[in-house]
This record gives sequence, C-alpha cells and structure tokens, in this order.
Amino acid sequence: MKRFILFFLAVSISLPLLAQRNRIDIPDLQGYLTLQCDFHLHTVFSDGTVWPAVRVDEARNEGLDAISITDHLESRRQLSEIERMSGLSLKTISHNISYDIAKPRADQSGLILIRGTEITRSMPPGHCNAIFISNADEIEKPDYMDAFRVAKAQGAFIFFNHPGFPIPPQQSDTAMWWPIHTQLLKQGMIHGIEVVNDHNYSLEAHRWCLDNNLTMMGTTDAHGPRPPFGHGVHRTMNFIFAKERSAEAIREALFERRTAVYWNENVIGEEKYLMELFKNALDWDMRKNGNAVTVTVRNKSDLTFRLKKTSQGPGILHYRDDSIARFIIPPKGSFRFIVRLLDDKQNCDLNFVVDNFLVQPNEGMNFTLNVK
Amino acid sequence: MKRFILFFLAVSISLPLLAQRNRIDIPDLQGYLTLQCDFHLHTVFSDGTVWPAVRVDEARNEGLDAISITDHLESRRQLSEIERMSGLSLKTISHNISYDIAKPRADQSGLILIRGTEITRSMPPGHCNAIFISNADEIEKPDYMDAFRVAKAQGAFIFFNHPGFPIPPQQSDTAMWWPIHTQLLKQGMIHGIEVVNDHNYSLEAHRWCLDNNLTMMGTTDAHGPRPPFGHGVHRTMNFIFAKERSAEAIREALFERRTAVYWNENVIGEEKYLMELFKNALDWDMRKNGNAVTVTVRNKSDLTFRLKKTSQGPGILHYRDDSIARFIIPPKGSFRFIVRLLDDKQNCDLNFVVDNFLVQPNEGMNFTLNVK
Amino acid sequence: MKRFILFFLAVSISLPLLAQRNRIDIPDLQGYLTLQCDFHLHTVFSDGTVWPAVRVDEARNEGLDAISITDHLESRRQLSEIERMSGLSLKTISHNISYDIAKPRADQSGLILIRGTEITRSMPPGHCNAIFISNADEIEKPDYMDAFRVAKAQGAFIFFNHPGFPIPPQQSDTAMWWPIHTQLLKQGMIHGIEVVNDHNYSLEAHRWCLDNNLTMMGTTDAHGPRPPFGHGVHRTMNFIFAKERSAEAIREALFERRTAVYWNENVIGEEKYLMELFKNALDWDMRKNGNAVTVTVRNKSDLTFRLKKTSQGPGILHYRDDSIARFIIPPKGSFRFIVRLLDDKQNCDLNFVVDNFLVQPNEGMNFTLNVK
Amino acid sequence: MKRFILFFLAVSISLPLLAQRNRIDIPDLQGYLTLQCDFHLHTVFSDGTVWPAVRVDEARNEGLDAISITDHLESRRQLSEIERMSGLSLKTISHNISYDIAKPRADQSGLILIRGTEITRSMPPGHCNAIFISNADEIEKPDYMDAFRVAKAQGAFIFFNHPGFPIPPQQSDTAMWWPIHTQLLKQGMIHGIEVVNDHNYSLEAHRWCLDNNLTMMGTTDAHGPRPPFGHGVHRTMNFIFAKERSAEAIREALFERRTAVYWNENVIGEEKYLMELFKNALDWDMRKNGNAVTVTVRNKSDLTFRLKKTSQGPGILHYRDDSIARFIIPPKGSFRFIVRLLDDKQNCDLNFVVDNFLVQPNEGMNFTLNVK
Repeated sequence: MKRFILFFLAVSISLPLLAQRNRIDIPDLQGYLTLQCDFHLHTVFSDGTVWPAVRVDEARNEGLDAISITDHLESRRQLSEIERMSGLSLKTISHNISYDIAKPRADQSGLILIRGTEITRSMPPGHCNAIFISNADEIEKPDYMDAFRVAKAQGAFIFFNHPGFPIPPQQSDTAMWWPIHTQLLKQGMIHGIEVVNDHNYSLEAHRWCLDNNLTMMGTTDAHGPRPPFGHGVHRTMNFIFAKERSAEAIREALFERRTAVYWNENVIGEEKYLMELFKNALDWDMRKNGNAVTVTVRNKSDLTFRLKKTSQGPGILHYRDDSIARFIIPPKGSFRFIVRLLDDKQNCDLNFVVDNFLVQPNEGMNFTLNVK
Repeated sequence: MKRFILFFLAVSISLPLLAQRNRIDIPDLQGYLTLQCDFHLHTVFSDGTVWPAVRVDEARNEGLDAISITDHLESRRQLSEIERMSGLSLKTISHNISYDIAKPRADQSGLILIRGTEITRSMPPGHCNAIFISNADEIEKPDYMDAFRVAKAQGAFIFFNHPGFPIPPQQSDTAMWWPIHTQLLKQGMIHGIEVVNDHNYSLEAHRWCLDNNLTMMGTTDAHGPRPPFGHGVHRTMNFIFAKERSAEAIREALFERRTAVYWNENVIGEEKYLMELFKNALDWDMRKNGNAVTVTVRNKSDLTFRLKKTSQGPGILHYRDDSIARFIIPPKGSFRFIVRLLDDKQNCDLNFVVDNFLVQPNEGMNFTLNVK
Repeated sequence: MKRFILFFLAVSISLPLLAQRNRIDIPDLQGYLTLQCDFHLHTVFSDGTVWPAVRVDEARNEGLDAISITDHLESRRQLSEIERMSGLSLKTISHNISYDIAKPRADQSGLILIRGTEITRSMPPGHCNAIFISNADEIEKPDYMDAFRVAKAQGAFIFFNHPGFPIPPQQSDTAMWWPIHTQLLKQGMIHGIEVVNDHNYSLEAHRWCLDNNLTMMGTTDAHGPRPPFGHGVHRTMNFIFAKERSAEAIREALFERRTAVYWNENVIGEEKYLMELFKNALDWDMRKNGNAVTVTVRNKSDLTFRLKKTSQGPGILHYRDDSIARFIIPPKGSFRFIVRLLDDKQNCDLNFVVDNFLVQPNEGMNFTLNVK
Repeated sequence: MKRFILFFLAVSISLPLLAQRNRIDIPDLQGYLTLQCDFHLHTVFSDGTVWPAVRVDEARNEGLDAISITDHLESRRQLSEIERMSGLSLKTISHNISYDIAKPRADQSGLILIRGTEITRSMPPGHCNAIFISNADEIEKPDYMDAFRVAKAQGAFIFFNHPGFPIPPQQSDTAMWWPIHTQLLKQGMIHGIEVVNDHNYSLEAHRWCLDNNLTMMGTTDAHGPRPPFGHGVHRTMNFIFAKERSAEAIREALFERRTAVYWNENVIGEEKYLMELFKNALDWDMRKNGNAVTVTVRNKSDLTFRLKKTSQGPGILHYRDDSIARFIIPPKGSFRFIVRLLDDKQNCDLNFVVDNFLVQPNEGMNFTLNVK
C-alpha cells in the first residue's frame, strides 16, 4: 500500500510536463490519413459543466484533429438555472453560441471544429447528433421530422447516439430499432450509429451498422471536464480515414463509412481498414537458422495487439512456439518467438486471432502468418 | 523485454485499489481537528471555465472539508462574452450566484461552502479575497476602501492574494508592501496573506506573516478544471486547526492564525503546529540490545518527511547511523536505523532538520531525537 | 518520456518496503487449501547461478508454500568449471547437497522444501523431474529406465519438463509423444507434464494432460536469480489443492491431479477446480429497482478476470448492459453494470466466457449469470 | 472506479518502451569521460550467493563501464560449507577464481573487469579493498601489513570499506580513525575511503576524504543478487572521470581523486567536478520581454536537481520568481520561471543551493544564476 502512494507523488511532480501537446500514434492507411476525432461533446450551453474553450483545450491536449460540440437543442439546463436565479430571459441566446465561442480558440490551436447539435427526443427516434450543419437555430423544430429535414438540407451527417440508452430512464424498450429508424434510413436522414458511447460498447449497434451499411461512430458524450492526457490513456474516439486533414475531407470519409472506433484497447471497424492498421503498425522480421525461424515483431504504433494462436498448418515442429499461445505486443514494444520447421518443409502457416480488433460483434480479426 | 512487459502489466492491475480512499490522511492536533480547505476558486461567473458544481465535485473527490468560491467582483469575462454574442445585458446577475448554485450540491456532499468574493484592484492594494461575507453584491464599490469597509462590516476574513503577482503584468513594483497595506492592517481590514498561490511559494509573504502576525494562507486560485485526485497528489491547500468541523469553527481558527499551508511535499506554518503534526504523524520505536539501539519510525499519515542529520551529541559511536545522514519517511511508510552508544553512555541526542517543514522562509524545522 | 523516468525514481525509493513478505491472495476450495508451489529450480550445483539459499529467500519473498530444487543429475556445469580451474575432482559431491544446504533455511522460513532432481536425457524420453525422492544419488544411473525405476521405488512423483524443448537444440522432432512415453505412462513412471515452463504455454501438453489423465504442472525452471516480488507480478507456479499445508498433502494432491497452473493472468486446469476458484474469488450483488438490476461484482482475490459476453437469454432489454461486452475485474477490484429486464420477466441469463481461465487448450471457461 | 482501472492499465502498457535503454545518462566533463563503476562485489567464492557471471550480467544490464569482484581472502563461507558437506578440502582453490571465471563473459560484454580482493581484518585496520592487483593469492598473509605491502607492490589502489561498520559487530569504537590508518596513509598504502557503502552515507568518511586528500568511493558491497535495472533506479556507484574508457585510465583517475559518488538522488564529490556535471547537464535559456525574463532550464541528463533559493542580489522585483523558492529539475525534464528586473537594472543574481550535490558533509553546492 505504502509504495503506491509514493508512486503518485512522483507522478504529481511530473504532471506539469504533461501539459505539452501529446498525441496517440496511429498509422495512416494507403491514401488516407488517420484522423482522431470526437463528435459528441457538451458545454455549459446545454447540460455540460465546462466553458466551450475547455473542449478545445482538452482536444488539443490529447492531440485530436477534430471535434464537434453538440449541445442539446432541447435541454439548456445551466442557462435555465441562471434564468431561475436572475429572473432574466435567456431564450434568445443562439444555439450556435458554443461553436462561436470555441472557434477562435480552435483556429489558434489548429484544431478542426465542426458545427454540430444534438436533436434530443424521446424514443423513437431518441437522441441524434447532426454535424456539419450551418445553423443550429434553424434545426430547433417542434416536429422532429422537420428537424431532420432541415439538418439534411444543411448537408448534415446524422447519427444515432447511444442506442442502448433509454429516455427517460424509466421508459422501456428504448434500444429497439423502430420503424421510424427504417424510414429515416430510407430517406437518407440517418448515416451512422454510436457503436461505443463513452465506455459502453453496444453489440446491437455494431450488428446494425454491419447490416445496414451505417457508419460506425465512437464518442465520449462528455458533460464534465475530462482528465488530463496520460500516455496510452485515450478517450473513446473515431478514427477517420480522410484524404486530407480538413473538415471537408472528414465529412466525405464519414459519408463513405471510412471510420473505426477506438475504445480502451479495442479497435472496432470493417476488416479492410483494421487489417491495414494492423499491417502498417507492425514490422515482422524473420531470420532462419537451420530449420529454426526467429520471428521478431515490432509495434511502431501506440495500439496494443492481443494475439491468440488458433491453429497451425502442417510443417511446424513444436519448438517453444507455444510461447505464442497468447501474447501481447504492447505500444511501441516488441515480441520475439522461435518456430522450428519440419526438416523437409520450407514454410508453414500460423493462424492467430487478434482478439482486440473487432470485425464482428465481440469477435476478433483472423490473421495468418506465413513463417519461412 | 517480455519480463518488463509483464511487470508493468501487473503493477497496473493492482493500483485500482487505491481509488477507494479519496482523502489525504493528516493527523489532528491536541484539541483541534485538521481540516483541509481551499479558499480561492473561480467559475464561469468570473473568468473561470467551469460551472460552480464542478468546484464542489472536485473538492469532494479530493476529500476537502471546506471551500470558498471567490469570483471576481470586477471581472466577469465569460458573462461579458455571452453579452457580446447575444446582445443581452447580464449586469443584473448577482455576484452571489456561484455560491447559490453550488450550495445545494455542497450540502448534499457534506462539504462546507463558505460565501466569498475577490476584490480585484490594481496595486495598491492588489487582489484580496473576502470570505465569510453575507452578500457579495454589497461589496462591489467604486472606492476599494469602501469595499473593504463593507466586507469588514459583514464579518469577513480578508486576505491578500498572490502578493508577488503584478496587475497588470506590465506594472512594476507590485509585490511591495505599500503604505496602504499597513493602513489596512491597522484598521483590521487585512487578516492573512497567501504564502502559496497554486505552486508559487512567496518567501516575502512568509516573512510578512511572521512579522505582522498575519494568517498564512495557501490556495489554488483555480480557474480551469482540476485533474482527478491521485493518491499522494494534492492541491495546494490550507490546513485549518479547528475546534470542530463547521464554518464557524473555521472562521474562528482563521482569525486565531491556526493554519498551515500544504504545498507539494512541504508544510509551512508556525513551529508549534508543525511540531505537533510531526509528532502525531510518527511513531518512534527504540529497542536496545547491548549498546546498539534499533530505531524504527512509522509514518501513520500521508505526509512525507525529509530529514537531514545536522549534528550529534556526545555518546554515540558511529555504527551505520550514517544511513540517517539523509532519509525520507514516505507516506504510510517506515524507516529503520541502528545507533550504537558508547559503552559508558545511557543515551544520546541526534539532531535533525525536517527539511520540508518550513518554520521560517525556506528553512526547515529542527528536531532532536533522544536515543536511549 | 521524462515523466516515466521520474516514476521509477519514486519506485526505487519504495523498493526497500517491498522486502517484507508478500503473498498472492488466492481463494481456497471446499475442503482444500490452495498452496502456491514451484517444483523446478536450479542452483550452482547444476547449471544455475545462485546458491541454494537464494531459492528459499525468493520463495519466502513471494509467499510460496513449497518448492523443490531439481538440479540436473547429468549436468553440473559450475562444479565442472571449478574442477577445470582448480584441478580438483568434485565428483564425490552428493546430488543431495543443494537440498541439504537449503533445508535449515527453509525450516527457519516455514517453507516446505521437497527433495527433487532432474533426470536429463536427450529425446526420448527428454527431461523429467522426480520430486518426493529420498536420495538423488541413487537415481544417477547410466540407463534411464533404471533411473525411473529407482525414482518410482523411492515414491517419486515424476513429470515431463517443457515437452516442446529440444535437446540438443539442433535435434528435431523433440516435442513428439514417443512410444517410450506411453510405456512410462503404463508403468506408472510418469504422472504429470509441464503445461507451462516459465512463460511457454504448450497447447500440446495441455491436450496430453486432458487425454491421458496427467497432472498439470507449471514451473519457472529458474536458473538465474529472480526479480523481486512486485504486487500482482508472480512467477509461473502450481496451485496445489491440498488437504493441509504439508509435504505429504502436496504429494497426495499431485497424484490425485488436484492442481492448476498460474501463468501471467491465466489459470489453466480442470473446470471443476477453476469454477470453484472463480466462485470463491467473486462476490455478486444484485439490486433490483423496477425492472433495472444493478449488478456489482467484487473480486476478493489477486486473480484477474477477463470476461466477454457471448450471448443472452430472452428477457433482457438492452439497457447499458453492453458495457459488459468485455470487462475486466481487477485484483481486489470491482465492476458494476446495470441490466434491464423486460417488464414481464422475472430473471434472465447472461452468458460469458472467462477468457483467461483455460479449461481446454487456449479456450476460456463458460459462465452463466442469472440476473433477477 | 472504472476510470481509474482504465488509467492504470494504459499506463502499464506504455512503460515497456523504457526497457530499451539500460544506462543512466550522465554528462562527461571537459577532457574526461564519466565512467560508471562498482568496485566492491562478492560471489559464492566468498560469502556472496551468486556465481561470478551474475555480477557481469547485472553490470551490463545496468550499463556500468567497470566492476571489480572483491571476494574476501579470509572468509570463504560457501566453499567451507561444501567442504563440511562433502569432506573434500577446497583450500587449494585460488583466490583469483572469481575473476578468472567472470573474465571471458566480461570481455564478451564489453565490460571492464578489474582484478580485486578484500583484505578482511578486525579493527584496526578493518576491511579494505585492493583493486588493480595482479594476483590475489599472494596477498593472503598472516600479518596484515604484509598483505598491504604485497598489494602495494602489485600496484594496487587500496581503499577502506564502510568505516562505520564494526567487525565483529559487538566490538566498539570501530569507526575511529586509528593510528594505524595514519601510518598506512603515510606509507602510501591507503588511497581512498567508501563515503557510501550500499545506502549508508558516512559523514565522517566524507570529512576524512576532504581532510586527507583521499579518493571518495561509493560501492554496493553486494552479496546477494541485485534487482533488475529500472529507469532512474540505480545502484550506489562511483563516477570515474577518466581520460578514456580503459582499465588503465580508471586506475589513473582513482589515484588522481577524479571521482564522485552517486547515491540515491545525491552526488557527492569535489565541487570542481560537481559544478562541471551540473553545468554540462543543464541548458539555461533566458528570454527578455521588457523587464521580464523567462528562464527555462532543461536537464539533458538522468540526474535530478533539487534547488532552493537562498537569497537574491539587488535588481529583482518579485514577480512570481518565488515559484523558484524550491524546485526540482527532473531527469530529462525541464523547469520554467519568470523573473522581473527593476526597471533600471540590466541583470541580477539569484542564489541557490543545489541541495543534493554534496560538496561538504551533508551540505549542498552553491550556485549563482545571473539573470539578464
């Protein structure tokens, strides 16, 4: 017990150093930059508890490329509290204010700030974020279908939030896919779903994305202040595979479903993108000495890889290769093992599952290593 | 390489246990509770960036007993920005609003919330906090002497903030003790000085407190969100030696100068209080075997003690006692050493300085251990 | 980078505190104590590099209950080097010497020391440990079958070491199950296999144990000094489910296959023992409020549990239950989630796999939680 | 709770990166390399518990440049135990054996191995190490003066070990400076003293070195295995300021007293060397804006610097300069502060003590920073 207290004392001494800009190191793909984004954030202008500038500072501190502040159109709890205390009416304050306040600071920081809002209704349709809008005030409509129509007309990218979250909490059957969702989908007014909201990974949302060609989203939905960036600690975020680092390129990537979700150690997304991340992150080196092949794999990224051996093809003699039954390649780390081939074989396949790269709900990605 | 990976993975796993106790363990004194307090905090209702509830949550998370939100009377930057964007006038919003919003949450948390404000003028007199006031609005006066008079009439405890901080930054000679300060002191309108503001320890402020019988204050002056509590990591705070855990008892202790300042590993204050903290935090055990005395000191608190041996009285033979030339007694930790007495001696004095218990500007507290 | 260096400085200061006796906290089973043992260790009296007393001190430092020093009969590399340098003949030094030197220190430490040796031949039969022997010298025989016979006659428990390890390294097909192994098995001269040797988990050895009713063994095979105990860091070891804490009870448990292997975060063994460890380590608390059930699971042990949700029975409405798609219950830690039942249901099954409790080669243990 | 778990899991993952550089980074001096050495180590060939190769591996793992194995001439406890158990006589084993066994491995590792021995008598003269000898066997003499004479004739560098350590422990007055020591000094048969042995810093030994122009030594005196290298964690060691990385250059530096001792965070030595280490480790950057000077100091080394402000010259206005009352420049870290000059001043002196650079017994090194 004692020694851990001491540990934190030292961390505290070094905390000021952490104020420098940090960034998680994730490989780019062929032809695309991997941008790190969070499109679901709140401030004191809805029911959050921080000034808009804080969202910019946090994002810069964590090395994000883009964020969107998505204050609720329908719930401005903190302004209501000021109204109640002061007797003033603050109804005329624009829904664009959090963007407008944050924008100069974002520009100064080189952060891409995307105008957004949250359309907040009970089920159905539940909560949705509209980002890449031009004017949040125009989207505040009594009829939610009108709100979706205006958002779409503004060119918005619209996604379901936390589909497993009931509103109000007492209401049941909220995580269902309702007929209205099918209708919104058909009318091009719903483009993505949050597969992860904060630390809640929804297996159903993952399934719905796969079944309906929806873009996979991962956000924090932060209301309070976020803890300082620590190395290897990251917020739930979207990887956006964009043609360049610009708002327009992010929008294009979102509509083309070129995203993945980064949640704890896990990456969730389509196999074609995850396999490319996996390959670009790792360097494999094989050295043959007689029939023994020494395999060294180096991880150039801040991702973690958890591999489990599933089976092996013919041609391998068991020679300490079982140290690879289960292994971890840590961020910027490496792992080494030795495989012995049968004398008359030139090569052999080793089959793994990358347990934390989810290409189906809760299922890892298969990977075959040809050892030669 | 693998070995290191394993080691750190395992360390991480055992640390969450620490998340359970969110309070720094500091001994009480004879007849007084040691309360942990921060009397200088800002919110969005002056130039801070958090909603008042965040200050309550942070304090509860760190196990504090009492805080005061001291938004500037003269600078309400965030409200001005809303005014500028909305065209509304928010002048009528009371200076009591941050207290009023935070109070129900503080009550719910068992946190003592003390009404306060910051009187923010250029030098002289510079910035001062008035706490234990009854109405902040009445203290907003064009003439600062009027402001001090009203605060005093409300029964306020008033202290200088960060005396080494110039306002505006371009102005020189700000950290001086001006005639006006002597006048305020004589008129009973200044009772304390911040010896530490955030991480800035002012040797002059420490000197002034000693010379003028002023209460030593230590605060964060936090404007943005604070990082989450980590064990052993603490904000700059006041220890208040109070007769009970109540607002009134804190006020009494402040006026009676029963405070210390806790800054990084250091405790700053009057020797009579620091010596009692030191003695109550440590258990000394001595076991004699022939002329060898084994001394074990256990630290029951979360304080750290850095001791340096300065000299020794007659009667000690050098026997590995020099392992105590410089040693640290870590939080909840222990330290053991052996002293050998000369054959014809029954006991001997060892003299130390407790380097991080500051009883004079930048000077530690002397302590003599009688070994027998 | 900088801040991690600082981190280690602090750890270093606290390292002396770690010298106290530590122990990993593992639950007992119904009617059996869970003893922590390592039956494969070397010293300078074969090809190890430490004096026998070091093995005792390490084991005590890690809180083990029992060890066996198993120096090779056939390879005494360090004694040979002394012979070469001094011209002396050291052949007459008994193979029992490492046990005899370590025994008084083990007795003093309350550590159970079991006499053992390693019979070290090329394949077949490869390397085997014989423990619970009475005299190692008698087992040194030119014909290995004679060696096994004598060991058996002494009442030894005999197990294969690291079946995937070739001797010499250039020799192939070493990890095979040879006819001689079947013969040894039939003659009652082989009772267990190392499923894990150091950090090498052998899927084949796991399979062989299951197919042939062999006892699962896990050892370090340490030759050099071991690193100091860190919390949560443990050596590969055997859990022995014994009727009491005695050498005889350990022997009985080994012959009755009441063992598990603890390797990194993983526990390998028969499901009946692993399920009881799992149940005894965890407290499940469920509180129902309407149709929402809050489930809190507390881990009383130092084991880690990695759970993945596989499927769910009817009756559950998706209500943030997907936070349990993948979760970790850390040592002495807890995890909480909420499940919402359909209105007309009284309870529901949630199905998980405990990914790091291996009841088949590389496959976790299934567990069903009935939520009500 | 979950948040903390996440944080620590992630911290763990990023730490293995540090496993790659196994050397403490200490600056060289003008014309001299700073070599890291430990000249007091034991093995199983006296009363240590490790094979000689372990000492080489540990040193390489910690990035040391040179070591000396100094097994006792008079106490070969482990060989005696083998004799007792086996009935063999091992008296003819040479005292050079630990060097001879370790040498090929040292050569392979690029480690400089210096032949040494420990002359182990009761007080006076107590324990002394003789290193740079040619044959340990010749130094084993009944009369200790003969032993010193032979060692000197072999060209040995001879130093007192742990002067505060009594042999036998019951004997008193052992740490005294006896007449025999003065005699040895006059005859050129004593050249240095251990100022630090393991973690015991002897104020008297420090004083004796200064008074008698003796070389300051710092060693581990390790008998058991050492823990693995952690970054920032280091053994007590000698810095040797040598003209090149060779045994002969180390010997020359030792006789010329070009050493310092590195113990925990502290460096002990002559001011001329410590000041150069200090200056070469730190980069000071000053930027003037009006009368405000921003000072940034960067630490290029793995040393830690603890500075305390003692006083300041005329010409400084107090402007947050008191954040420098006490500060730490961590390994590879930095620290920034702002000083404001009086309007009519061009520069000013700030005076510090570097509290952990000991140039007198337990007293830090003064340092003046001219701010301009």
